[in-house]
Amino acid sequence: MNEELNDLMTVLRFASVSTNSAQAADVRACADWLVTKFESLGLSVALHETPGYPVILARNAHVPGRRTVLIYGHYDVQPAEPMNEWKSPAFEPTIRDGRIYCRGSTDNKGQFMAHLRGIEEILAKEGKLPVNLIFLIEGEEEIGSPNLRSFLETHRDELKCDVVAISDTGMVAQGVGTFTYGLRGIACMEVRVKGPTIDLHSGIFGGAVANPNTMVARLAATMHDSEGRVTIPGFYEGVKDLQDWEREAWMSLGDSEPETLELTGAPELFGEAGFHERERRWARPTAEINGIGGGYQGPGSKTVIPREAMMKISFRLVPSQNPERILDLAEAHFLAHKPTGVTLEIIRGHTGPSYVMDPHSAFGKAAQRALAATFGGKTALIREGGSIPIVQAFQEVLGVDTLLLGLALPDSQLHAPNENFSIQCFHDGVRLSQALLHELAL
Amino acid sequence: MNEELNDLMTVLRFASVSTNSAQAADVRACADWLVTKFESLGLSVALHETPGYPVILARNAHVPGRRTVLIYGHYDVQPAEPMNEWKSPAFEPTIRDGRIYCRGSTDNKGQFMAHLRGIEEILAKEGKLPVNLIFLIEGEEEIGSPNLRSFLETHRDELKCDVVAISDTGMVAQGVGTFTYGLRGIACMEVRVKGPTIDLHSGIFGGAVANPNTMVARLAATMHDSEGRVTIPGFYEGVKDLQDWEREAWMSLGDSEPETLELTGAPELFGEAGFHERERRWARPTAEINGIGGGYQGPGSKTVIPREAMMKISFRLVPSQNPERILDLAEAHFLAHKPTGVTLEIIRGHTGPSYVMDPHSAFGKAAQRALAATFGGKTALIREGGSIPIVQAFQEVLGVDTLLLGLALPDSQLHAPNENFSIQCFHDGVRLSQALLHELAL
Repeated sequence: MNEELNDLMTVLRFASVSTNSAQAADVRACADWLVTKFESLGLSVALHETPGYPVILARNAHVPGRRTVLIYGHYDVQPAEPMNEWKSPAFEPTIRDGRIYCRGSTDNKGQFMAHLRGIEEILAKEGKLPVNLIFLIEGEEEIGSPNLRSFLETHRDELKCDVVAISDTGMVAQGVGTFTYGLRGIACMEVRVKGPTIDLHSGIFGGAVANPNTMVARLAATMHDSEGRVTIPGFYEGVKDLQDWEREAWMSLGDSEPETLELTGAPELFGEAGFHERERRWARPTAEINGIGGGYQGPGSKTVIPREAMMKISFRLVPSQNPERILDLAEAHFLAHKPTGVTLEIIRGHTGPSYVMDPHSAFGKAAQRALAATFGGKTALIREGGSIPIVQAFQEVLGVDTLLLGLALPDSQLHAPNENFSIQCFHDGVRLSQALLHELAL
Repeated sequence: MNEELNDLMTVLRFASVSTNSAQAADVRACADWLVTKFESLGLSVALHETPGYPVILARNAHVPGRRTVLIYGHYDVQPAEPMNEWKSPAFEPTIRDGRIYCRGSTDNKGQFMAHLRGIEEILAKEGKLPVNLIFLIEGEEEIGSPNLRSFLETHRDELKCDVVAISDTGMVAQGVGTFTYGLRGIACMEVRVKGPTIDLHSGIFGGAVANPNTMVARLAATMHDSEGRVTIPGFYEGVKDLQDWEREAWMSLGDSEPETLELTGAPELFGEAGFHERERRWARPTAEINGIGGGYQGPGSKTVIPREAMMKISFRLVPSQNPERILDLAEAHFLAHKPTGVTLEIIRGHTGPSYVMDPHSAFGKAAQRALAATFGGKTALIREGGSIPIVQAFQEVLGVDTLLLGLALPDSQLHAPNENFSIQCFHDGVRLSQALLHELAL
């Protein structure tokens, strides 16, 4: 075992699933371990309580006149279900073929731990950092960072900085330095379809009442047309076309279809008519049903009409789409299509706006130099389909851009069973972090 | 505790769920207990193994020239899930307000145990039964009696009888003798919709591939029109209108809508346009989604595109509809509507044809006399929406009609949490069984 990986392996063993309150103790234990780790580096560190999980802030002694860089990460992870699809235990980091398999290995523990290691190496070699550092690690990113914006507002002065750096996005391929200058936003919603007050025998009562399973399906089917366009009125209002330089930068990456087909294993690609699959993922809004359920789902059959069925939806949003406005439109759409014989309960979930920065700004160019120094070759300029709502908050509250310098590979299987992090990416990340801090120093 | 109920309480404690192989030992233990019970009554009893759960046959000493009556019951029960909705444990019979709450209390343990008790009482009073009795109890009714037809065929001579009697249907109200002369058939199917080979992050991949959750919903939504008619081509082929005497008999029962609204708690009734809700339940075919599921259904949110989603469907059928033909039509319909970007796996489940007999036949009239003697007043002549596939097998293999003399009340909550059996119905059933055997005796 590479000694450089020891700390990462330790952090990965905490089952810090923020969406499941049963795992609260694991989330907090992970935070406590990080505090101790930062202290051991000689940084001043504080664990700030929030209404949810704590935010950790670590900093060096700031010197006036130097650039101040905020590095962000999150120590919480997605749920690991379905557990039986993991080839090794979800919370026991296991190395196979140069990858560390574990929930959170890429998203985000492996990536922020590369920065932490990079800082540790600069301190070991140089005795001090070339910039004023603020290292902020939160524990609620996977549930939409509900308390981070108010934390930023409350600690605005303490968090004043020139730029933010985050590694929580992807690389187009192993060894290709990748700069993500845009992210989609998100807006979540759950729709519960309620019929009878008790589960009914579908022989005795079938034909008499609306079946919530059927009705949730009918409602779900109103969300898209047969060519994958979202049919919620107003959904695409104000959505802009790509700029020419973006289209060219993306074209230079080659055709993504074969890779996406291979990564997903889908029988064919499918999505909004009229757009290339890369544009659909990076620059077009979507409506995905993340969960649908009602009635009997076990082995065999059970002839029941359930009293309730539900679907969980997440919308991915692009610039000009306001998340709350999208939820308003979706709610109005579902109410307008409410099937006969059932009632609807609509529950709004977390939201976060989309984000786009200019990769040709001064900080953008510094990041590109650090990427070139680490990886060589041409840096890929991309957007991504995922959401990091906090990036928008950094812009709005602290007034700074975020450099998204991701270390995830296309097959890292984020949010899925067998999530993994390339050990090479970890080593590259450790070097990138050092190069970045030096490039950002005045 | 009423001593008359002791045996029933014992039988109810066996968690004899036939669809779940984890409960196989409970199913067998229940069968073993019944064998011992029949032996204690001085009947000759045999436990016949099948490829699934055993069939129990008990009989008295048959006397040539007497009528032979076969009483049928089933000792297996539906799954009890969702467990957390039971007000008392699902397999611990609990008496509240004159009802016994337990899975299987009405369906079917309470009802066949009333016949067993009736026979016990005749034997105690008269020393012998007025007919040649064959008491057949199987353990696979809730999974469609897959082995009973071949059992009847193999034991055709041994099972030769004049008529079958079953209490596994409903009464229109407490104290109203009810004769069910028709049942709907059933045909089950599961449709699995498969997309990517792994669960995907819906931010990273949303827009690139078809989402199985969305596609199972779109497929489900093709099964009915907005007014509740089944849209599978050919589904209603040959379905006949009610006869005049049936329509009159049903009208005489009064308007069922208020009662069905109250029993179901549905916000309103809904079903095939152009038919009264009673006719929709008793004499019209239906397509119900008993289960739908895919993706994340736990608390909070998980932004995933699952690799698979599924729906479990049961069709209820009326005379002239062939179950296998209906499954053929459904399969063709789903394949014709297969959404882009996914593949379908269609799994056929159990089937059973519908059944209608003439309630004005000689045996029908004998049953009506027994009902009148037990309950007084006017006997309700009804059909029911549920399915007892074995009734058709009795007709086809043994060449006899079945008298369906049910003891379930409309709010017995069969197949649902808090299933219950009225103690008054049990007592009435004990008397009905005795009256019936005397009326059927030559």
